[in-house]
Amino acid sequence: MATDIADPAPQPSYPPVAIDVAALTALLDGDHAEVRNLVRTNLAAYASILEEQEHLDRAAFRERVKEVVVEMAATGQTGMGFPKEYGGGGDVGASFAAFETLALGDLSVLVKVGVQFGLFGGAILQLGTKRHHDRYLADLITGRLMGCFAMTETGHGSNVQALGTVATYDAEAGEFVITTTEPDANKDYIGNAAAHAELAVVFAQLEVAGPDQTMEGHGVHAFVVPIRVDGKPAPGVRIEDDGLKMGLNGVDNGRLWFDGVRVPREALLNRFADVSEDGTYSSDIDNPNRRFFTMLGTLVQGRVCVGGAGINASKVALAIAIRYALKRRQFEATSDEQEELLLDYGQHQRRLLPLLAHTYALHFAQEVVAGQCHRVFSGEIAEDADGQKFRRELESRAAGTKALGTWHATRTIQECREACGGAGYLAENRFAALKADTDVFTTFEGDNTVLLQLVAKGLLTDYSSEFEEMDQLGMVRFVAGLAVETVVERTSVHKLFERVRDLLPGGDQWDQEAGVLDSDYQLAMLRFREEHILGGVARRLKRGIDSGMNPGTVFSRVQDHVIHAARAHVERLVLEAFVDKVRAMPQDGDQGDNRVALGLLCDLHALSLIEADRAWFMEHGRLTVVRSKEISRRIGSLCRRVRPLAHDLVDAFGIPEEMLRARDLIE
Amino acid sequence: MATDIADPAPQPSYPPVAIDVAALTALLDGDHAEVRNLVRTNLAAYASILEEQEHLDRAAFRERVKEVVVEMAATGQTGMGFPKEYGGGGDVGASFAAFETLALGDLSVLVKVGVQFGLFGGAILQLGTKRHHDRYLADLITGRLMGCFAMTETGHGSNVQALGTVATYDAEAGEFVITTTEPDANKDYIGNAAAHAELAVVFAQLEVAGPDQTMEGHGVHAFVVPIRVDGKPAPGVRIEDDGLKMGLNGVDNGRLWFDGVRVPREALLNRFADVSEDGTYSSDIDNPNRRFFTMLGTLVQGRVCVGGAGINASKVALAIAIRYALKRRQFEATSDEQEELLLDYGQHQRRLLPLLAHTYALHFAQEVVAGQCHRVFSGEIAEDADGQKFRRELESRAAGTKALGTWHATRTIQECREACGGAGYLAENRFAALKADTDVFTTFEGDNTVLLQLVAKGLLTDYSSEFEEMDQLGMVRFVAGLAVETVVERTSVHKLFERVRDLLPGGDQWDQEAGVLDSDYQLAMLRFREEHILGGVARRLKRGIDSGMNPGTVFSRVQDHVIHAARAHVERLVLEAFVDKVRAMPQDGDQGDNRVALGLLCDLHALSLIEADRAWFMEHGRLTVVRSKEISRRIGSLCRRVRPLAHDLVDAFGIPEEMLRARDLIE
Repeated sequence: MATDIADPAPQPSYPPVAIDVAALTALLDGDHAEVRNLVRTNLAAYASILEEQEHLDRAAFRERVKEVVVEMAATGQTGMGFPKEYGGGGDVGASFAAFETLALGDLSVLVKVGVQFGLFGGAILQLGTKRHHDRYLADLITGRLMGCFAMTETGHGSNVQALGTVATYDAEAGEFVITTTEPDANKDYIGNAAAHAELAVVFAQLEVAGPDQTMEGHGVHAFVVPIRVDGKPAPGVRIEDDGLKMGLNGVDNGRLWFDGVRVPREALLNRFADVSEDGTYSSDIDNPNRRFFTMLGTLVQGRVCVGGAGINASKVALAIAIRYALKRRQFEATSDEQEELLLDYGQHQRRLLPLLAHTYALHFAQEVVAGQCHRVFSGEIAEDADGQKFRRELESRAAGTKALGTWHATRTIQECREACGGAGYLAENRFAALKADTDVFTTFEGDNTVLLQLVAKGLLTDYSSEFEEMDQLGMVRFVAGLAVETVVERTSVHKLFERVRDLLPGGDQWDQEAGVLDSDYQLAMLRFREEHILGGVARRLKRGIDSGMNPGTVFSRVQDHVIHAARAHVERLVLEAFVDKVRAMPQDGDQGDNRVALGLLCDLHALSLIEADRAWFMEHGRLTVVRSKEISRRIGSLCRRVRPLAHDLVDAFGIPEEMLRARDLIE
Repeated sequence: MATDIADPAPQPSYPPVAIDVAALTALLDGDHAEVRNLVRTNLAAYASILEEQEHLDRAAFRERVKEVVVEMAATGQTGMGFPKEYGGGGDVGASFAAFETLALGDLSVLVKVGVQFGLFGGAILQLGTKRHHDRYLADLITGRLMGCFAMTETGHGSNVQALGTVATYDAEAGEFVITTTEPDANKDYIGNAAAHAELAVVFAQLEVAGPDQTMEGHGVHAFVVPIRVDGKPAPGVRIEDDGLKMGLNGVDNGRLWFDGVRVPREALLNRFADVSEDGTYSSDIDNPNRRFFTMLGTLVQGRVCVGGAGINASKVALAIAIRYALKRRQFEATSDEQEELLLDYGQHQRRLLPLLAHTYALHFAQEVVAGQCHRVFSGEIAEDADGQKFRRELESRAAGTKALGTWHATRTIQECREACGGAGYLAENRFAALKADTDVFTTFEGDNTVLLQLVAKGLLTDYSSEFEEMDQLGMVRFVAGLAVETVVERTSVHKLFERVRDLLPGGDQWDQEAGVLDSDYQLAMLRFREEHILGGVARRLKRGIDSGMNPGTVFSRVQDHVIHAARAHVERLVLEAFVDKVRAMPQDGDQGDNRVALGLLCDLHALSLIEADRAWFMEHGRLTVVRSKEISRRIGSLCRRVRPLAHDLVDAFGIPEEMLRARDLIE
């Protein structure tokens, strides 16, 4: 029988590990320590916002958040991703680092920054051309010009292609006419819309009269539309406040209706398509779906940012909960004299330490996706077919990391709150705001479930461009076709074994002969799972279609496997990132102990992932009962080894003490 | 290979089910339809509180909540559990029904009611004697006299026996002197303390001079202490506001310090122990631990109430999310003409419908525990040994149902919010308050993890009284003793098979031959798991102690199994309650279809539980891979069968439409 008792207390073979906290922080900060430290300084300088969030009324708090955002902008912190000629930092990678670090503080400030510089500014930069850049960038980078990103409508969030707002070209006047055509086609949840934005980037169905004068639809395009003049709604624009929200009440979300609002022809953000004065539509991208996804693809930075924000918000929660567990005692346990520290309870270690390990793993995975995104937007990736594939893989990775990072935030903050008991419920201890503010991260910049479907779509088609250009229904119908045959072949058990064999010796017994603490074993397990589930999805889709079932019904029935496949894929990417990081660290010298510590965390992360899905591994013959129990035991033992390192491991996040706030809890 | 495609669309063998919603509501309401309807009427009458919660400032909202509580009290709703001679309803069961139903509305009102009538009033009633009843009950039942329940301290929440507040008897003056003796020994998180309470029931270490004049401690006792006179803190009492909380901001939580506050000898709530004028301590219960747990035991009603509240708050979230999913469409799937309803997506069914099934299951489990509690407090249970055991089992069941019911609320409300996307994030759609207000349910009236340990303790000792009287460290040390031998013997696989065989034919193959939709199979699985884990815990504890390990260390290592054993036990009780309910329904007549519908839900509930822990069942040889996959498939198929019934199933909860509030989402 499995026993946790068999593993004795700290073993002599495990030398004590002494973490070099500063060096570990440097490792986490990576290439962007400078900008991260700038943000840390700014966060500390504006720490009072955490209290102001509690006692200012909504209108005043919105103004205060705007003020902080503009003042932070003046330090250069928020403009890192814009070209230098307009006053930006010219470093996309630094912009991710800055944004992530900002997530250690008040999240209304973070989201306001995301709206203004990421969504609004990003749309102008990525979808516009020089005329838009010259006109807007310098002002928006300083925050003198505030704008919003008006994509989502009440009726359509995930399905952006079905938006109801229409922009009709009036050739005579040389203007576009923007109209909210139907109920529920108003823009909704638009940050900066309720109070501060002068301009909106409005996504609307472009309609232009064809040669025979009947209107032709060209799909969704983006237009710069003034929505507020001298603080009042612009003519034809109706603005409604979204009112109180669960959190993020320093951001002024609102609704917008357009009643025949006229903007000049030049208001079209025309990087990918244009309309000539006489009303001729032109685009370098012929396929309308591909054009649409190309436009959306340029907005991938938002997802990279939100994923990183979720991961960093988790760090704050963990720092508080772990330091609390190292101060708080309750019940006598090992001693009659003194009550036991919470973190010396096995269950408490089990609650918190795997989450700490996942947070490190996600941090390094985020570093990879941010790095790739930097390369794409710095022009390091060619425009050829390989470059296209790189971009699609990046989009998929960004979607997947965003989904896992934000779900991780929701779960981690909740667990940390509960682990701090009643004290965790008081607003002064940060969990209230952390929970409420991050809750919508799983929804915005793409609902997580929808994002994982996007990931699965990429996997099923091996990122072929034909598939990318399809909408969801098209994708489902496509499953009867050849691409799926390819997946089925690629993921046959025979092929999977072949690939695993390259990674791990042991032949068909690889999964039983390797040690559970061998990273190659852990990676092989995740790779096997990913491909096997994916093959299962492809086979199920094909069988359903072949049997004559409605493609939508087939998709609905297989949907949980689709999501599982995507999650398995992203989890594999995350583990790879962590393993790569640890392997690249020097074994000797100052950082040797840090490598040991991260190795423990990496094992804890990997085994926790396998344990969480061990039923699947057993169902598919890749985990024996004996080994499954061994893994659970190992997790307990790893938790005990990480326990003495826990304080240093959260200190290494480099969270300004002011941001922890929970004075009574942790000091 | 397992496939979800093999199970075709609605099968001819499944006749359509037509739910009689009114009859189902009557079934759910049970014996207390009248009081539940009274509360529904009151909730609708005070529906404006849901908006007031948003726009009133904290001080004004507290006053408004107090006002609503007092007005509701005037309808008799909140006094159901008190004796009729003081103006109460004389019906403990009705008090649970009233409280649960109140959880459909604003939860500050609920918690204020719980504090005033449950905790404060309950302590006076259960721990006091006639002199206290005569003096306080009539006034507190009407809300003219507000009080608080001052047990928890900053330093001690779960470990109540270690409280630091001291009450010393001064025989000369015939008074107790109440003192906050050390930092962190102040009372904290005390509802009603910051603004409204005149009196506090204060839990303190009683010290009385012994024959030789040295002070003797008698453990924690409760005293009635005036804390506020004419709206000002009473002399010697310091009151601090706990400030803003994550939620429940209509309840005035605060901290209390006592600096030699004198109260007359009669202020001791002396049902279980007394101090005579000359300073002689006496109690009918000799063992101090047993006395302490007997006192605490009388407060079990609070846990019953909170569990029920969590379950009912979940109903509100599910009603909104399911009705939203029956209105909201997104993406074309089965049709080119129209987008698909969210609830027609397999993944969406998987997210929401098992939670609906669990909610029904927990509702019926709550009915059982509330019924047992009613019997105990109505004097139907004798005071003999059997009666004692019944009480201890009730305490365990109440603790377990509270833990599972409140974790269910946290999980369900979160899932429902995410399932409503951005709209779910707006305050007007109720999730904001539901999430924030219920979040502390997992903590108050006993931290869930600690409660599950209590459940496990009862199981390990078969509710023997010796064991009940032990503190945690005592319990751990006890494991070396005989009681564990009994558990080890009782839970041997041989014995487990014997017991399962009585339930289910099929000999040692019972788990492979029964149909997965056979309730006896489902129950046998849960029973087997419960006892097997429990036996494992006992063996692990014994082996650890035998090997000379520190008992606290042993406990820490086994703690996750302890929690798992308790959870398995409570899940079995919950399933039993649901199965019993369905079996008792008539097969024919008007309710026949309702029985079919609940049968589907019960299967969905049971199989979802088994699926969630299927790794354990496989690890312990009770689930083959084939059957495990079959169960997952069955869940998908049950979801599709429940799908057309979903609207009726949430309507049957009888939630006043005003409480759903999410007008735009669901209409």
